[in-house]
Amino acid sequence: MATGPKQAKYDIVIIGAGPVGLLLSTCLARWGYKIKHIDMRPEPTVTGRADGIQPRSLDLLRNMGLKRAIMANTPAKVYEVAFWDPKQNGSGIHRTGTWPSCPSFIDARYPFTTLLHQGLIERVFIADLNKNNVTIQRPWRVIGFENDGKDKDYPVQVSLSHVDGHESETVRAKYLFSGEGARSFVREQLGVKITHKDPIANVWGVMDGVVRTNFPDIKMKCTIHSDAGSIMVIPREANMVRLYIQIATSTDSDWDPRKTATTEEVQAAAKKILAPYWIEWDRIEWYSVYPIGQGIADRYTLDERVFMGGDCCHTHSPKAGQGMNTAFLDAQNLAWKIHHVESGFADRSILKSYESERKLIAEKLLNFDSSYAKLFSARQPSAGEVQDATKNADKEEHQENEFVKMFKASCEFTSGYGVAYDPNIFNWSESHPAQHPLFLSAAKNRTKARTGRIMAPATVTRVCDANVVHLEQEVPLNGSYRIYLFVGKPTVTKNAVADFAYGLGKKTSFYSAYTRPDVDTIDYHERHLPHSKFFTICTIFNAHRPDIEIHEMLPEPLARYHDHVYADDVWDQRVPNAKAAAHAKMGLPEDEGGVVVVRPDGYVGCVVKLVHGSGTVDALNEYFGSFCVKKLGSDVAQL
Amino acid sequence: MATGPKQAKYDIVIIGAGPVGLLLSTCLARWGYKIKHIDMRPEPTVTGRADGIQPRSLDLLRNMGLKRAIMANTPAKVYEVAFWDPKQNGSGIHRTGTWPSCPSFIDARYPFTTLLHQGLIERVFIADLNKNNVTIQRPWRVIGFENDGKDKDYPVQVSLSHVDGHESETVRAKYLFSGEGARSFVREQLGVKITHKDPIANVWGVMDGVVRTNFPDIKMKCTIHSDAGSIMVIPREANMVRLYIQIATSTDSDWDPRKTATTEEVQAAAKKILAPYWIEWDRIEWYSVYPIGQGIADRYTLDERVFMGGDCCHTHSPKAGQGMNTAFLDAQNLAWKIHHVESGFADRSILKSYESERKLIAEKLLNFDSSYAKLFSARQPSAGEVQDATKNADKEEHQENEFVKMFKASCEFTSGYGVAYDPNIFNWSESHPAQHPLFLSAAKNRTKARTGRIMAPATVTRVCDANVVHLEQEVPLNGSYRIYLFVGKPTVTKNAVADFAYGLGKKTSFYSAYTRPDVDTIDYHERHLPHSKFFTICTIFNAHRPDIEIHEMLPEPLARYHDHVYADDVWDQRVPNAKAAAHAKMGLPEDEGGVVVVRPDGYVGCVVKLVHGSGTVDALNEYFGSFCVKKLGSDVAQL
Repeated sequence: MATGPKQAKYDIVIIGAGPVGLLLSTCLARWGYKIKHIDMRPEPTVTGRADGIQPRSLDLLRNMGLKRAIMANTPAKVYEVAFWDPKQNGSGIHRTGTWPSCPSFIDARYPFTTLLHQGLIERVFIADLNKNNVTIQRPWRVIGFENDGKDKDYPVQVSLSHVDGHESETVRAKYLFSGEGARSFVREQLGVKITHKDPIANVWGVMDGVVRTNFPDIKMKCTIHSDAGSIMVIPREANMVRLYIQIATSTDSDWDPRKTATTEEVQAAAKKILAPYWIEWDRIEWYSVYPIGQGIADRYTLDERVFMGGDCCHTHSPKAGQGMNTAFLDAQNLAWKIHHVESGFADRSILKSYESERKLIAEKLLNFDSSYAKLFSARQPSAGEVQDATKNADKEEHQENEFVKMFKASCEFTSGYGVAYDPNIFNWSESHPAQHPLFLSAAKNRTKARTGRIMAPATVTRVCDANVVHLEQEVPLNGSYRIYLFVGKPTVTKNAVADFAYGLGKKTSFYSAYTRPDVDTIDYHERHLPHSKFFTICTIFNAHRPDIEIHEMLPEPLARYHDHVYADDVWDQRVPNAKAAAHAKMGLPEDEGGVVVVRPDGYVGCVVKLVHGSGTVDALNEYFGSFCVKKLGSDVAQL
Repeated sequence: MATGPKQAKYDIVIIGAGPVGLLLSTCLARWGYKIKHIDMRPEPTVTGRADGIQPRSLDLLRNMGLKRAIMANTPAKVYEVAFWDPKQNGSGIHRTGTWPSCPSFIDARYPFTTLLHQGLIERVFIADLNKNNVTIQRPWRVIGFENDGKDKDYPVQVSLSHVDGHESETVRAKYLFSGEGARSFVREQLGVKITHKDPIANVWGVMDGVVRTNFPDIKMKCTIHSDAGSIMVIPREANMVRLYIQIATSTDSDWDPRKTATTEEVQAAAKKILAPYWIEWDRIEWYSVYPIGQGIADRYTLDERVFMGGDCCHTHSPKAGQGMNTAFLDAQNLAWKIHHVESGFADRSILKSYESERKLIAEKLLNFDSSYAKLFSARQPSAGEVQDATKNADKEEHQENEFVKMFKASCEFTSGYGVAYDPNIFNWSESHPAQHPLFLSAAKNRTKARTGRIMAPATVTRVCDANVVHLEQEVPLNGSYRIYLFVGKPTVTKNAVADFAYGLGKKTSFYSAYTRPDVDTIDYHERHLPHSKFFTICTIFNAHRPDIEIHEMLPEPLARYHDHVYADDVWDQRVPNAKAAAHAKMGLPEDEGGVVVVRPDGYVGCVVKLVHGSGTVDALNEYFGSFCVKKLGSDVAQL
């Protein structure tokens, strides 16, 4: 071994304790990895910064068991967005419309945005990390790193230093992750360039404060255009309100990215914009002015050892509140892939999909943000202009302007449910290496469980305790694939279920090949991972709960997951005519069922028909065999 | 003043920090009262004791802002109860039926029982008390007390001592409350007798533990009758299970109230009862044997200065899990009445209603418990007996036996929603002193808001921030009456609303007569009590949220409650044809609305028609005037 004996070794070194670093750290700490986590700041965020948790992110936080702690801070909730525009007679602003922030066409458990300052969110993660004996080393920074390969298992050397420069250490790690934010030492050292999708940069002022006002929508999210400028209002916890004001834009003739404004100037501008309503400040909690352009890193990793995520990889306007949410999903995406490689389940090549999946999302985000921000920044026509422009003012006023149209179209995106990963090794498609006639697809078979998309929420009854539960939340974010066996009618599929169980039990099945080494000593009360660390099986019957006898109707290994057996007997307003709503929401036949494989992050991997014989498991062996380490489905199981 | 200068003075001395004492203490501490709270035990309950929170109690805990902290302990939730009986062939037990623990005919937000050990519940209250600078003085006991009237304002002298006897103190108080439990020094000193409703006493064994078993309903609440005896199974947090076993009953020929059983004996009995299923214990968390009879205190107070509540006033079998829940409601009932007397709002005579309301409930509880427990204790006919009894066994088996019938009938009671207070000064009826033609009653006017009953839950949209909220939870337990102004259609009731607001504004109205002395300096952000500490006004429009402009449609003082204005625009499965579901659930006309007055504890006080002119406020002046201190509705407002 080339390195000195004194260098400590870690599975991962994480730089930066903002949302992306913390979520990654929290996952990996729970799954038993050894982590060095540093942050330049002496303490977590005190005030301000990001504050919007989208519906999809709230699902994720709940899946991590952190939602209750987040909600204990009594955040504001945004259900609707209001649009205000100049009155045509020049006498100030009026409301021209409102729109749900997560309209009912999106099937969301929590159809609202949760507003809470970043520091409170960070503290929830930090408390969880502390339970797993991870503390953030502060204020420390990274001063050098190299994937020198001198240690095969720990190929990355990382040098760290206290920000005062008096203390430093050099460690070795399997991975280095930069969640440093927009100014990233790691990105710079790697020579990764930022591509500016939209050449226009802006200077934004953002102010959190407690206000008094007679503006009626002060507790709603509002975009306000007036003859005196534009502003965005976002309600916050503890009677606070956040105002975003655009101070300068690179299209201005006197553009200066260092242009600034005092709090008094912003307050004065806000007063003019809100007229005829009045507004006064009790206090200002936080104020910041920052220039920002749209940028996206050309690469998220060069070697699948040193990774980047969050603001380090993508910057954009603050308008749609997407920064923190995108960061969360970056981290979640990387966490389980590292886990699957390091625990010997999956081939190292899967790590390439981190960049391909998440960069695509960032590109979509920037495209979205660009049009959204342009519309926001654009001054609305003034009263006189409007009067000139149209004789029939009333009709014109009630037509939706471009901004509102854009907003409606983008709800799916802003809610977080618009994320769709392209077909790849995880997201089955006709071109996937696994080819088996039993794979179902949205295009051909009208299944509603679309690969690369989040699994639809469904309410079911848990058989063992009759609790009414949310199926999509039943398996926690534990790094395992979720195998949802939709049984259909038990009388119809009895043999298919038996064959499925038999297939799982074969030594070379995807399931049995990855049996836990400690399977014989596993706790009787283990609910999720009794046999394998990589699979949790949920079985859903199209039957009434009292008619289901787990141990009579399910063979092993399915019966072992007795806490994950469900009755699909809860009526759902979205599929009012379905007898088995969860089956219907997946687009599966209510009698014959089917198998939905969901990735550890909640996105659908593949959907397979449930049939007599070995076919169903054969198809799954092909699917998992395309990226896992062991050879599956033959009699030679072990590498 | 007759008392020495060294005696500390308290608004109330509370003895006992179980559920009843803690809830009372928590309310009064929040409302600013000075409290001395002692408990004999050196620390809160460590394990065992009461553990069932009924649906109604969970509403209450949520209304106090404590539900999230309770739920953070991940309690078990009971949605269904299973009944097991002997098989006819003598080969053990089989399930004969299940029933929802809170069936859908009960309109409950949380249709389940929450199971959590008493110590965790106590700690949630204690943490809240600490925030208000109340700590429980432990281990201390009461050693003497007297309502000697030597101090007009603090008429009760109370002597307290450390349990080791080396320390003691004597204090003066306005009130003394005993939440001491079944063995009460205070009750004994007062000479209050216990009436035993049912002469039968029982010895119960109760055991909490972690088990392994193939009994399929181990995570459900079960009542199991077998040829080997009877047992009750209750799931608990952290994989625990509680077993209740009846060890002896006073109808036994060898009855001995000191009869006991070892843990091994109880385990052996459980194994026999559960056969053919097996059960093994990983560990036993808690085990207790206690004799208990049904008893009810003849009085809850003699002088409306020294009060008692909880187990001190009523004891019964543990079967229906009613002890803690009844205790909570005792405390809640007393808390706001003391508050209204001590803050000068209501006449001291209202304190008499504590005993009359809560003793009635305890009597109903004991009647219920008696029949319920008898059925539980009764050995079911054995296989042979059943075979003798009937030729047509199958049919017989599927008919509901007495136990199941009783269970169904009592669901409303066990959920906590069956509590109905009789007509009295708070619960309007035809015989109420306030007589005005605008009072509505369930009998005459088919209003569904029945006086003396909890207000029905209703989901509405809050106008100011578009949040979808639970109307019945919008006003926290803050000691105020909740005035729900159901506006109906704003075009229909515009004048009536204006007249209502005008009436409230009159100096002698119930509302204005109790204006806060600090009304001019009240915080701009005060949501609930901006004008009066005794009233929070909620206004509910039969209209879509975006069509409601608070400050254009509501005059003062109604508009000041801008956080309590709602749109009745959320569809409700229970009233599927209603356009305004909340109006419909109250039984009010959807166009004309009405006013529902809800007591501080959530029970309906009176319902009044909403009309043009002064009538609506006149009726309310009569209602409140019947028990409040000031003369209302005339030009001479002050006493």
